[in-house]
This record gives sequence, structure tokens and C-alpha cells, in this order.
Amino acid sequence: MNKNLLLASSSTIYGGSYLEYLLLELEVLFKDTDTILFIPYARPDGITHDGYTNIVQKAFKKINKKIIGLHTYENPIKAIQEASGIFTGGGNTFVLVNALYKNNIMAPLRAGLLQGIPYLGTSAGSNICGLTIQTTNDMPIIYPPSFKTLGMIPFNINPHYLDPTKDSKHMGETRETRIKEYHQYNTPAVVGLREGSWLRIIDQKIVLKGTHSARIFKQDTSPYELKTNSEILL
Amino acid sequence: MNKNLLLASSSTIYGGSYLEYLLLELEVLFKDTDTILFIPYARPDGITHDGYTNIVQKAFKKINKKIIGLHTYENPIKAIQEASGIFTGGGNTFVLVNALYKNNIMAPLRAGLLQGIPYLGTSAGSNICGLTIQTTNDMPIIYPPSFKTLGMIPFNINPHYLDPTKDSKHMGETRETRIKEYHQYNTPAVVGLREGSWLRIIDQKIVLKGTHSARIFKQDTSPYELKTNSEILL
Repeated sequence: MNKNLLLASSSTIYGGSYLEYLLLELEVLFKDTDTILFIPYARPDGITHDGYTNIVQKAFKKINKKIIGLHTYENPIKAIQEASGIFTGGGNTFVLVNALYKNNIMAPLRAGLLQGIPYLGTSAGSNICGLTIQTTNDMPIIYPPSFKTLGMIPFNINPHYLDPTKDSKHMGETRETRIKEYHQYNTPAVVGLREGSWLRIIDQKIVLKGTHSARIFKQDTSPYELKTNSEILL
Repeated sequence: MNKNLLLASSSTIYGGSYLEYLLLELEVLFKDTDTILFIPYARPDGITHDGYTNIVQKAFKKINKKIIGLHTYENPIKAIQEASGIFTGGGNTFVLVNALYKNNIMAPLRAGLLQGIPYLGTSAGSNICGLTIQTTNDMPIIYPPSFKTLGMIPFNINPHYLDPTKDSKHMGETRETRIKEYHQYNTPAVVGLREGSWLRIIDQKIVLKGTHSARIFKQDTSPYELKTNSEILL
């Protein structure tokens, strides 16, 4: 096993343009390839696959990478198998997972990542590298064949992690309450990844990067903060 | 058909105690019964069925109603069929729907509500009276056999509806964006029900009640506000 992944909480941070805060990291991640296969299935805001791919092409032009949308291939399985770099963008996690299953992409994608294809995920694209999508924040707008995902890391991610708002008058569950409920039924740990944070995975080593600490949730333990640049051992 | 339902966005509003703001309405809804069957399956915060039932018993004692938890019956199908009033509390919608399917409650519950059993739902308990749970805010912590629900109203509810926060630096999707994505794949309308609002359904008539307007989302139409005390025709 020879993993090489960058899993970001968010594609964009407040005040920045798309992927801007990650570009230096992406030059390193994708240093051995000029062309990156883009998986546009999550369709944020319901954007078309072409429209989404255009946005990604513009961002990657700044580091001289060519982006090709997976939806343009007649045989998406072969496209995954032959890719030398892959990026899965954010959007709706249920839509993404459903499309990965329906196009029979889940198994070849997993195989490719285990062979060391450099991979970028943002938001939903990071979520699918966990064990399941059961800690997504998204609405279940499509019923997927399964909640199981790629298992590139031995825990789940909660992207766009949000701390409880002080003095909020809203009675809906906080993110922390939702994850506590998750642990009533599921044992895997959850990493609450704030916007501006990412996980860098090289082989078996998982390191938290970016500007923030992450919030770690384990079953039957109080949640705690993990500092950036720490190795994640869960 | 002879429906008699009260579907609230939230069990509790800021500064109040559990169900307090609805007690006068509940005296009317349950005027013909002293005993109400409580469905505790949604387990907010992971609370036990007994613990949840205790909270509900305390609230209903104020209007002299006896509460019996569905989990205490050996035959929950029969308990539903013989109930003269039903309340489904909030919590995690996926956990609730999964339990309703696993205990074969969905069909008898639907039959009972169509026969006119007075029914109170709050949050997840209201959500299940829509067509599907595809506009829940909850985490998918359990994989249910289906997202389809009771269809007591010809649209979906988004409970605890939240307007976009002005000047937010968070890049996650707003509630409005999420519902827009829902309409990329689904045709039914969505009623964004703010905390303090409820739907009162008598026979075929659905009226918005409570302190707030509701936000109405239809496919291919801009969302709009509907004033309280208006009939909902969707």
C-alpha cells in the first residue's frame, strides 16, 4: 500500500477563490502528472458536470494542470484505471455516492488509490474516503445503494465542522450532538475537520494540516482537540 | 379520509420548556382521549426509550394526559391499531424511520392516521408525515430500508428551517441551497417550517399556524414566504 491523498474540509475558504488556499500543496501532490481526472458527480448547487469541470479547469490552470471530467469518457471505469491523478469535488454526498455505485466506480477507485494514484478530495470528495457517509452534513436527496465508502482512512470525516454557536436561539441539534447520536449506533471515530484544514495521507501516515485544530470524537469518550501538524492515530 | 394532525417544526422553542408553547393546541387535538401512545424511536441525543417517554409524560401531565411508550408493548402493531391518540417525538429521522420499518409500523400507522386518529409530530415526527425524509437536516447514522414515509401531506417538510446567516464566513451549503439541490432530483414541494410554526391538518385542509411565516420551495420557482394562518395548497 502506497497511499497519497489530500482530503480537505472545503474547496474554498472565506474570502478566497476556488482551491486557492491549497494550490501550493496541490503542486506537490500532483507533481508527477500534468493531467488530472475530475469526478464532478456531487454537483454542488445542482450545477452540470460540464459547468463544474470548467470551474475546476480554471483553478488548476494556475498550476498548469489539465483537467478532464470523468463524465466525458465512454468508459468511466477504464478512465479511473488509467488516471495518473484524481480529484473528487464537493457537493451533495448522497448524489456523489449514488453515482459512484451506479457507474461501478467505487471498486476501481479504491484499487487505484491503494496503488498510490495521487488523490485530492474536498468536502464530499473527502467524505467518501472515510468508512461511510454517515457523518455527512448533506440532505439525503437521493437514496444510494449503500452508505459504505472507500475506507482509505480508518475513521469518518465530518467536513465543514462547526462549533456550537454561542447564544444561539435555534433548537436544532448542534454538530456535536449529531455526532454523539452517530456514536450510539456506530463505533468508528469521527474527525471534525474545520474549513481550512485538511488531512495529508502518505502511505499509512495521516497528518492534520492547515490553520485549525480538529475535533476528535470517539465512542464513549469526551470529544477533544487535536493540533494541526499532528499525526492522527485512531 | 378524516385526518387530524398537528405537525410542529420543533418540540421546544427558545426559552420555553418541552411542548410548552403547544399545550393549548394539544388540549384541542387530544380532547377525545386521555391516553396517548408515544413513539420514542427517534432517540434525540441517544436517550433511552424509557428516558424519552419520561420527558413526554411530564409535559403531558400538565394537560392531564397519560403517555404510554410504544416500546413497552409486546405487539407494537396492535398498540398502533388500538391507539386513540399518537405522538411521535423528534430526534434522528433515519433512526426513527429505520425503527418504523423494522417493527412493521409504517403501514398500520398510515392506516390509523387516515382513519382520523389524532396525531402530534415534532421535528422528525413531523418529517415522517411528508412524502420522504429527503429534506431532513439529520445525519444518516443508520441506513434505513427506504426514505419513503407516510405521505399524510402532498409535500415534504424541512423542520427547524433556518434562514441564511448574514455575514457568515462558513462555506458549507445554506438550507436554501440544500433544498435547491433536492429539487434537481425530486419534484415535490418543500415547506421550510421555522421553530414556533406548525401545520394543522384537518381532513384535506392544511393550515400554517404559529408565530412565523413559512418558506415555500417549488421546483423551478423562486422560494417565497407564506403567512401564518394561511391554507397551504401545494
